[in-house]
Amino acid sequence: MSSSPSSTFSAESYFSTQLPPSNLEHDIAGVREFVGRQKDAGRKVVFVTSGGTTVPLELNVVRFLDNFSAGTRGATSAEYFLKAGYAVIFMHRQFSLQPFSRHYSHSINPFLDFLEIESSSASSELPSSGSTPNGVTSSPQICVTPNKRDHLLEVLTVYKNVHAAGTLHTLTFVTVNDYLWLLRAVSQELSLLRRKAMYYLAAAVSDFFLPRQKMSEHKIQSGKGSLHIEMDQVPKILKPMVEDWTGKDGFIVSFKLETDQTLLIPKAQASLNRYGHQVVIGNDLNRRKFEVVFISWKEFTSQSSREDDASSSSPFRESWLRIDPHDRAKEIEEDIVEELVKRHGRWVHSGER
Amino acid sequence: MSSSPSSTFSAESYFSTQLPPSNLEHDIAGVREFVGRQKDAGRKVVFVTSGGTTVPLELNVVRFLDNFSAGTRGATSAEYFLKAGYAVIFMHRQFSLQPFSRHYSHSINPFLDFLEIESSSASSELPSSGSTPNGVTSSPQICVTPNKRDHLLEVLTVYKNVHAAGTLHTLTFVTVNDYLWLLRAVSQELSLLRRKAMYYLAAAVSDFFLPRQKMSEHKIQSGKGSLHIEMDQVPKILKPMVEDWTGKDGFIVSFKLETDQTLLIPKAQASLNRYGHQVVIGNDLNRRKFEVVFISWKEFTSQSSREDDASSSSPFRESWLRIDPHDRAKEIEEDIVEELVKRHGRWVHSGER
Repeated sequence: MSSSPSSTFSAESYFSTQLPPSNLEHDIAGVREFVGRQKDAGRKVVFVTSGGTTVPLELNVVRFLDNFSAGTRGATSAEYFLKAGYAVIFMHRQFSLQPFSRHYSHSINPFLDFLEIESSSASSELPSSGSTPNGVTSSPQICVTPNKRDHLLEVLTVYKNVHAAGTLHTLTFVTVNDYLWLLRAVSQELSLLRRKAMYYLAAAVSDFFLPRQKMSEHKIQSGKGSLHIEMDQVPKILKPMVEDWTGKDGFIVSFKLETDQTLLIPKAQASLNRYGHQVVIGNDLNRRKFEVVFISWKEFTSQSSREDDASSSSPFRESWLRIDPHDRAKEIEEDIVEELVKRHGRWVHSGER
Repeated sequence: MSSSPSSTFSAESYFSTQLPPSNLEHDIAGVREFVGRQKDAGRKVVFVTSGGTTVPLELNVVRFLDNFSAGTRGATSAEYFLKAGYAVIFMHRQFSLQPFSRHYSHSINPFLDFLEIESSSASSELPSSGSTPNGVTSSPQICVTPNKRDHLLEVLTVYKNVHAAGTLHTLTFVTVNDYLWLLRAVSQELSLLRRKAMYYLAAAVSDFFLPRQKMSEHKIQSGKGSLHIEMDQVPKILKPMVEDWTGKDGFIVSFKLETDQTLLIPKAQASLNRYGHQVVIGNDLNRRKFEVVFISWKEFTSQSSREDDASSSSPFRESWLRIDPHDRAKEIEEDIVEELVKRHGRWVHSGER
């Protein structure tokens, strides 16, 4: 694999040359209504992005380039944000993990395994469905086995409360194109909430894509020989997000995933420096379940810094967050969210003076 | 995108240069035990492959090339094969659709939406979990809402019967490398069943891959410029499958997916001609839910052919299978499986003479 100089798309030229997804208007109408309700309720809102984006190689999609991401970070964090009283816009890769249902993956913890068919008192055969004279259906009850009840009760109770309160709004994307158009539009809607809006960008976004003009219509035939794919760079969207779409007031948290530990801090710092947002959370692919580093600006956290950058001339603050990797009941997202809720609270408060 | 002549891997050189997945021995031990039980029971077995294979671009996987496939064809067909009395080895892409749970996708039909917490007679608050003196837990029951019971009862009953009978064995793959090693090993185990084994190859397999020697260890840095990916062709495995791994007695059904209707029949016929197996099922990406074509050899179906190829000199038989696209209760896999069960029955019988 190699890279070479190429004409790069700016965010502006991207949106003027690529087509919006067909559902965009409908999706944004839903977001607008949700944001309006949260504004009336005085609630803070976090926009969580989660899962990987795809780059289709053909217009009739047979193959695509994907970014590895089950959506664990985003789906788990969304649950903790909801518990902390936030409203959440959860924009995730279709079919990737979601808050609540993430505990019941069909592969790992299939729910069909913990349902029992209660034998009815009338007969142990399959009764036909129908009503008795007083309107009660004669289908036997299907209930959760006793040993699974406690955990499911906990999850289900919060799930129902969230639905009753209307504090979770869900959107999906598949391609990097869907993602970019939605990211911009949702950010613009959320700018209404000014400092009360947080942006938690946990999605694994494609760095490279195929502009529509370069895509083939039909399935690329394998025939003989090797396949060459030449892709363009996806525009860096943190820049317009920080400077434009979020109205400059949002609390923006981005993620940096690396496989080479030596690159992690330098790249996280370079990102914060280049875009000027609030927090970069750095994580190593193989350690991300139990260790992350928060890179932020020194000025906002001068009161309670436990781990300051060793060099006092550095503008960056570096805080490591670790949990015990063997503690199976603990999820690092609980601590990530707790820390961000504190920092966002200070951000909102500093805007009120 | 372009293609150029390259050294192509044969199946032999593939397996001698690429590493087997770490779970291979464990997985095959499970298959061997399953196949032994079905042989004792005199049951026919179908090996169903389902979902897309991936080609990771890095050894520490951040990006990968994927083949579009939710796994609907394979998962749905597996259910109908089970209902027809077959034992099924279901080898699918991790997290893609599976028989039974496919009806309850967390995105489209989330099961959490149809569970109710029964109010206990003791209290309407969350009781602490614990046992009363006679051993009954005090957690409230969680049961399925009445309007969802009938459908779930149907699915759950078959699911439980299949588990009790031990007629479904599940394996997963992620990469095309996992897939190829498993395909060979499972086929070799199944060759024990001779004509009673059917192979239903519905997985969407990568045509191109990156040999281990060409993969980068770390995440490819995006930097400036475009990304070039050069990939080798995956060896055509139908050849060794037909001629070697399945012991020459298996009933092999492969699929051909095309986006260009004009290529469908020629390519399906070319595939059958090249490999000499039993059936190629051709489908157009945009019509596959309601229309497929069976390409097979004329000699095996001369007794009951309804749609013979117009040219009497063609060795191929072409049978179109269509359903009403607007009939939401009908799944085309029901008819595909019914037809294949008949044809496989004749295959088994013709071996007994």
